[in-house]
This record gives sequence, structure tokens and C-alpha cells, in this order.
Amino acid sequence: MTAKTKQIDRLIEAIESTGNPSALGLDTRPEYLPKAVLAALPSEPERTEDDIADAVYTFNSALIDALADIVPCVKVQAAYYETLGVAGMRAFRDTLLRARSRGMVTIADVKRNDIGATAEAYAAAYLGPSAPFSADFVTLNCYLGTDGILPFLKRCELCGSGVFVLIRTSNPSAGEFQDLPSGGRPFYEYVGEKTAAWGEGEGLMGTLGYSSVGAVVGATWPEEGKRLRALLPNTFFLVPGYRAQGATARDLRGCFGGASRGGALLGGAVVNASRSLLCAHRKRGTEDFVSAARDEALRMRGELRAALAGE
Amino acid sequence: MTAKTKQIDRLIEAIESTGNPSALGLDTRPEYLPKAVLAALPSEPERTEDDIADAVYTFNSALIDALADIVPCVKVQAAYYETLGVAGMRAFRDTLLRARSRGMVTIADVKRNDIGATAEAYAAAYLGPSAPFSADFVTLNCYLGTDGILPFLKRCELCGSGVFVLIRTSNPSAGEFQDLPSGGRPFYEYVGEKTAAWGEGEGLMGTLGYSSVGAVVGATWPEEGKRLRALLPNTFFLVPGYRAQGATARDLRGCFGGASRGGALLGGAVVNASRSLLCAHRKRGTEDFVSAARDEALRMRGELRAALAGE
Repeated sequence: MTAKTKQIDRLIEAIESTGNPSALGLDTRPEYLPKAVLAALPSEPERTEDDIADAVYTFNSALIDALADIVPCVKVQAAYYETLGVAGMRAFRDTLLRARSRGMVTIADVKRNDIGATAEAYAAAYLGPSAPFSADFVTLNCYLGTDGILPFLKRCELCGSGVFVLIRTSNPSAGEFQDLPSGGRPFYEYVGEKTAAWGEGEGLMGTLGYSSVGAVVGATWPEEGKRLRALLPNTFFLVPGYRAQGATARDLRGCFGGASRGGALLGGAVVNASRSLLCAHRKRGTEDFVSAARDEALRMRGELRAALAGE
Repeated sequence: MTAKTKQIDRLIEAIESTGNPSALGLDTRPEYLPKAVLAALPSEPERTEDDIADAVYTFNSALIDALADIVPCVKVQAAYYETLGVAGMRAFRDTLLRARSRGMVTIADVKRNDIGATAEAYAAAYLGPSAPFSADFVTLNCYLGTDGILPFLKRCELCGSGVFVLIRTSNPSAGEFQDLPSGGRPFYEYVGEKTAAWGEGEGLMGTLGYSSVGAVVGATWPEEGKRLRALLPNTFFLVPGYRAQGATARDLRGCFGGASRGGALLGGAVVNASRSLLCAHRKRGTEDFVSAARDEALRMRGELRAALAGE
């Protein structure tokens, strides 16, 4: 039996080969679509969930196809598809499949959490090639403790998939619970240590310095990012909050580094950008969302690389 | 403009009128279906997601129809539907609709959590009559703090819906994070106090002593349940963990009481039962799952009432 490819290794290799530690965040709200696309839809009340979901999928597909050679990864935020109902879930599934077919690494941003038996059902829904909403990674919330996480890790061991556990989120009120002093340190550090310990489980460590159990660390909290990077050298970070939420490339520099090959600064994290890519055409006042997103993706790559080079 | 009916009031009234503080937990795994139903499905590999999801919905509908006069409420666990893919999400939606059409109060057990903008999309997906997966209540995880909760509360104010925030969960490792000493008390108490404070927001207090912001408190932790009941008199509890997870009616007695009318012990909590109802026919060795579930629901009602009467 050959060893299963670990998606964490694949993600790192894809970042290295594109020279771009970023993810296309497909948080696609219908209002982000170009005006011409929206105008072509049936008008209310004839407009159905299917019409909107199909238009969202078409938009996503065009972006995926246009960016797959320069962006290694997509993160698809489930909420924006659930809000479009059953048709939205079809668009969610098909968007993940489209990205996979173009060679991109896929993250289903679902932040699921439940007791063991139920976590098993969630893991089967999202992880592994035969899952109905198949992704390479899922995001998780660990408030329920180890027995809500283990079913996902079993799946990771089996299929080579990975997870990102919420540690320090990007939103303004993140600190409300996450910073609560707990045994002489903030609560999120304790969560971080547990996450690193989960990553040491059997069959979860990749070959490139990082485990299949990653962490969500908001770009909007540079100090916390730096502390977590030092605490968790073998934990890969998914970093939301860039641009639309206010973080700059310099803010998130501290999330990089870790156990990367030869100490390469490019390693250790992937930065998500959603609105800045999805709405690049609006900012530029054009209907050509594909070119606008590609230009913005290249600009972002340049900005991240410059920041990592210490410029 | 007439005041919007609050679902928390409707839930309490439905509990009083049925004399039954319990919820039918539709955590329907395909293997729970009677053998004859499973045998009638096309065999693998012809069996599709649609076949299974349809059978699950048919099973759920029969239970809803048979129990609606004696059980006030259903809780539908999203994981078991997501794991059946797009067809499963259709069954999830239709199960919620069926329960509503039979007059039952509906809880979508989704444990969603995200930053503000995304929480808004989740709230629109689940709460309010026009939501695509419309339920009267959703369950939430509050690790992201207030700004991930407020979009749901806005929706509650608008539509009269409610939420249940995870405080102390029923699973064995619940204490791992939830009990962490935080400022001289366990973390879950701090979460409980925040939850109560959220419930004091404008337009959220019902007319029967409880707010639209409830709490999930596991039946498996009697001491914690009692403490939380004392701390949070105006917070209604959703109590999982009865029977299949090992808790008895006596264990969860401490979750009741609170601010109920005339101090009635029946008030203040609703107890979820999933496997004990869904699999009652198996225990009895019959294919007649409807009669078996009805008998078990009546037995459970009797047991809860006896325990609350101090017997």
C-alpha cells in the first residue's frame, strides 16, 4: 500500500509552486455578481433559488478557472450557500468540485462542532473523496473538546485530509471569550496547545514540517499571531481578515515561518482573501470580474511576498 | 402593528398544553429505518442520495404525524442530513416544514458560528418564515463573541424566533474547555452570563418569564445544570443527553424551574430525546416504529413528570 498523500503537504507544495500563500475565498453573495449577470436573471418574484445559485456557481467557476494557475487554494464559506437553500448547497458542492478539477486545494469553511457521534456524520459529509460535499480541509470549532474533534482526525488519517481549528478569530469581538485569562494565559493559547497536541496524533504529521491539524488565526491580531506562531511551530495557519476586514500584509507577517523548509518565510500560513477578490471589478468600475480578480490576486501575491521579504 | 408572537412563548405554551417538556430529536441515520423500508430501497450501487433522503423524510414525517399531539417540539440535527448531500438538505428542509405544518415548534440544531457578516447569512438561512431552511430556533456556538451572535438576535427581534447558545454540552469531554478556570469560575459560567445578558436585548424577552436567547445544557451534568439554573433564571434550557447518552430524568431535574409561572416545575427546559424515540422499534423487535415511538414518548413524558414531581 502506498502512503496516502496528505493534503497539508499538497497545500504547501501548491503554495511553493505558485509562490503565493493565498486562498481565494468564495464567500459569494449574489450582490457581488456583475450587474449584467444580475440583470439577466428572471426578475422577482419569478426568480428562484436555482436561478441565483446557478449564477453564483457560474461566477465562481469563472474565477476558479482564471486563478487556478496563480492561487493555490480556495476557501468556500458555507453560510453564503446555505442562505440560498437546497440549490445553494448544490452550488457549494459543485464549486468545491470545480476547484478540485482545476488542481486547487479546497477548504470547506463550515466551522462545524458537535458531540462525537454527530461529529462523525459531519466528517463524512465533508472529508474524503466520497463525501457528498468533498473538500480537502474543513474548519472546526472545538468548544466541545477532544471527543468532538477525534472523528474528523480519524477521517484525516484515513483520507489524508486536514482540518483548521478556530483559535483566534479575525472579528472585533474575538477577544471576548478567546482572551479570557485561563490558568495564567489567554484561553486561545490553551486552545492552541490542544490543537498542536491533536496534530501529533497517529498518521497526521505531513512530510514538510506541518501536521494535518491546522489553526485559524485572524490577520487582524498581529501580536496574537506572533505568539501563536512561536507556540505552535508545526501547526499550519489559515489566516482570514486580510483587506476587507482591515489587516495589511505586514500585520500577518508574524503568522508565517514556523517549521518551514530551510526556514523559508513563505511557509506556515495561507492568507484568505474574499471580498477584495470577488469585488475587484466593482472597485475598478468594470464588468470584467475575471480580469479584475486576476490583477488583484497578482497584486496581493506581490504584496505578501514583499512583506515576507521584510520590505 | 400587532406584536410578533415570540417562539419562546409558543414553546412554553406547547409544553404546558401537552404537559410534556420534551423534544423529538430527528437525528435520523438511515440505519435507524425499519428493515422493510431499507430492503425496499434500490440496492447498492443503484441506490442514490435521493433514495435514502426520501426514505429518511418519509420516516420523519410518520413520526411527526404520530407524535405532534403529545410532543411539543422537534429538534432536527443538521449533520445527519448534510451527510446525505444535497438530497439530505432537501429532507432537512422538508422535515422542518412538516413539523411546522403539524403545529410543532422547530429547532434546527446547526451549532453555527462565524464573524458578523457571515453570521448574518446563517441567520437568514435558518430563522424567519421566509428562510430557506426555516426553523423557530437555531443552536449557536458563541466562541467568536458578541458580534457573531448579534445578527441572529436581530433576526429574533424581527421574526420572533429564538436561539440556544451552547453553554455546557452533554458529551464526555465537555469539561476540557468549558470547565477551564477563568477569572475564578469555570469558563461555561462566563458564557452563561453573557448568554443571559444577550437575552436582555431589546425585543427579546417573552411574556412568560424567559427570553428568546436560550442555552444548551447537557442532561449528563446534573451539578452544572443546577448551578446554571440558579445563575440564569430567565434563560430557557435545551437539554440533550437523556437516555442514549446516559442521563436519567432525575439527573436533569435541576435544569427545570427558573422563572416559570407560579414556580411551576414543568417550566424552564425542554429535554431532547433522539435515539430512544427513533430506535424504539428496534428495542422492541418490531417494524412498527410509529407505535413504538409513541409508547416511548408517553413513557418519557411520565418519567419526566414523575421526576419533576419529586417522585
